[in-house]
Amino acid sequence: MTAKIIDGKAIAQELRGNIAKAAAELAKDHGIVPGLAVVLVGADPASEVYVRSKSKAVTDAGMKSFDHKLPADTSQDDLLALIKQLNEDKNVHGILVQLPLPSQIDSTLVLNSIDPNKDVDGFHPVNAGRLATGQRALVPCTPFGCVILAKKMHSSLSGMNAVVIGRSNIVGKPLAQLLLAENCTVTVAHSKTKDLPGVCREADLLFAAVGRPEMVKGDWIKPGATVIDVGINRVPGEAGKTKLVGDVDYKEALAVAGAVTPVPGGVGPMTIACVILNTLRAACASAGLPEPKV
Amino acid sequence: MTAKIIDGKAIAQELRGNIAKAAAELAKDHGIVPGLAVVLVGADPASEVYVRSKSKAVTDAGMKSFDHKLPADTSQDDLLALIKQLNEDKNVHGILVQLPLPSQIDSTLVLNSIDPNKDVDGFHPVNAGRLATGQRALVPCTPFGCVILAKKMHSSLSGMNAVVIGRSNIVGKPLAQLLLAENCTVTVAHSKTKDLPGVCREADLLFAAVGRPEMVKGDWIKPGATVIDVGINRVPGEAGKTKLVGDVDYKEALAVAGAVTPVPGGVGPMTIACVILNTLRAACASAGLPEPKV
Ligand SMILES: NC(=O)c1ccc[n+]([C@@H]2O[C@H](COP(=O)([O-])OP(=O)(O)OC[C@H]3O[C@@H](n4cnc5c(N)ncnc54)[C@H](OP(=O)(O)O)[C@@H]3O)[C@@H](O)[C@H]2O)c1
Ligand SMILES: NC(=O)c1ccc[n+]([C@@H]2O[C@H](COP(=O)([O-])OP(=O)(O)OC[C@H]3O[C@@H](n4cnc5c(N)ncnc54)[C@H](OP(=O)(O)O)[C@@H]3O)[C@@H](O)[C@H]2O)c1
Repeated sequence: MTAKIIDGKAIAQELRGNIAKAAAELAKDHGIVPGLAVVLVGADPASEVYVRSKSKAVTDAGMKSFDHKLPADTSQDDLLALIKQLNEDKNVHGILVQLPLPSQIDSTLVLNSIDPNKDVDGFHPVNAGRLATGQRALVPCTPFGCVILAKKMHSSLSGMNAVVIGRSNIVGKPLAQLLLAENCTVTVAHSKTKDLPGVCREADLLFAAVGRPEMVKGDWIKPGATVIDVGINRVPGEAGKTKLVGDVDYKEALAVAGAVTPVPGGVGPMTIACVILNTLRAACASAGLPEPKV
Repeated sequence: MTAKIIDGKAIAQELRGNIAKAAAELAKDHGIVPGLAVVLVGADPASEVYVRSKSKAVTDAGMKSFDHKLPADTSQDDLLALIKQLNEDKNVHGILVQLPLPSQIDSTLVLNSIDPNKDVDGFHPVNAGRLATGQRALVPCTPFGCVILAKKMHSSLSGMNAVVIGRSNIVGKPLAQLLLAENCTVTVAHSKTKDLPGVCREADLLFAAVGRPEMVKGDWIKPGATVIDVGINRVPGEAGKTKLVGDVDYKEALAVAGAVTPVPGGVGPMTIACVILNTLRAACASAGLPEPKV
């Protein structure tokens, strides 16, 4: 068998197009232009690249982007004051604080100070609680993207055995909740799991969010399964360069799985698309409108 | 094999004794007497029995019990005003609103108005979010009791395969979170699960929270597994009477499992003990003290 390659880049592009259409309708019908505020403290080059790509995605979708760049020595109080102002700003529907923050600032305190209704990263405990109890919630973007990819491969996930390797607050655990909401039978595995290959072999849908390069081997995969690789690992490549690989041995997976995401070009592009989607969703919710259809 | 019968009544009794000791120390060392307010609207006889048994358990543990009985035609505003008052009352560390509430009152609104730090039922989305993200949380009493029972049978649950049948907000989902925190590999099954018997047969720890009398048969159980039966179902008994049975076929389970809870006398008594435990935990947290050891 040679697996179908799940083209996350193309799927994200299509999703971003649909979000742009929905945003245009929201502006036409309700006079609302979704706005995303991104807060960057300090000048980490990788974070700057990421923030720029978010801002571009936002404006590409016809939404407003508000960038706030603060010096590295910004005090916690000043940052909290900015967030308070953004929480109150009617033009801002989503707030992202780029991590990591400098050491003088308590990240948890800052993230918890964001209005949960504007928390487009979905990291606020109130959003985790809403997700866990089946209420309308802003859900973390990476797991959100993973489920959209899985649903592109299957008209319904209901009754499928889903295995999630990893149980972080930002990927594994919210992913498990989303899959449960899709009526999967969900198993969460982690570093204490016994016979991980055996657990994985039961999966119709296998999600790897571990951070261990190419850990998931071909013989861990049920023939025909859909494999979504969240991992992003930088490893030594050819000629002294480095390269990115996932948590799944891609070559081996290609030979066994029914469908598999590449790294890069799989889950990664979906994460940014879901930031934009969450901004649209937050704008709709703030106006008492139903979930946008994208 | 004949399974060990997990004596929930005795374990709950012992736990209540330990809670009483810890409460006595809290009073001696910090001058704090934990207080639980129970609010009952209307005069449902079953609810009255339940409230009385809670109050007795509270006072048996050396804590204060504040009962609020309101007439069945109480307005939502009056109930919300009472909860506001209890939220502010320094002598009240836990608040329970007995369900069901009369139809003129929006239960969700009322439950969400309870201070999450006093929400000893653990139903508030903030507590669900704290539980889901690994923070100190007030967790729902029935799943809390289930995990205590499982831990009585095994010195550590780490690496065990746990299967939870049921995914309600008050039992199945928080139970899955608690088992994950104990380092189990956790599978959540439900009405859309395919081959439920096969999924159950993988379980070292099997939890049934379904509400279907004796659904789990002997051949669904891995020999030697620990089986915790949350179900409480009233079915026709002998001589025109009714009797209570669980979600597990108890007789069949006895022959296969390593340990099994009876119904009644298994999970049930643990639920009330955990209400008292949560009141103690809320009192400790409110004073900035660490988790009580019980
Ligand atoms: N594509 C994207 O946009 C995106 C976004 C976020 C993250 N990621 C990538 O996704 C991966 C996971 O991220 P994260 O933030 O969730 O990581 P994390 O917080 O480090 O969590 C890793 C999880 O993997 C488990 N684990 C570690 N070693 C294991 C092993 N040998 N066997 C089984 N499980 C093991 C850990 O188990 P314990 O809990 O038992 O320690 C933990 O639950 C990383 O590669 C990260 O770069 C990608
Ligand atoms: N001992 C105690 O103190 C205590 C406390 C609370 C509850 N209980 C008892 O525990 C049981 C469950 O309570 P609950 O409030 O969680 O019930 P619930 O909200 O009705 O949830 C029942 C769960 O069981 C699942 N289910 C239903 N039929 C199924 C089937 N044929 N196969 C597999 N799964 C099935 C449902 O799946 P779907 O989600 O797909 O519908 C649902 O997730 C009840 O008997 C209740 O009386 C006891």
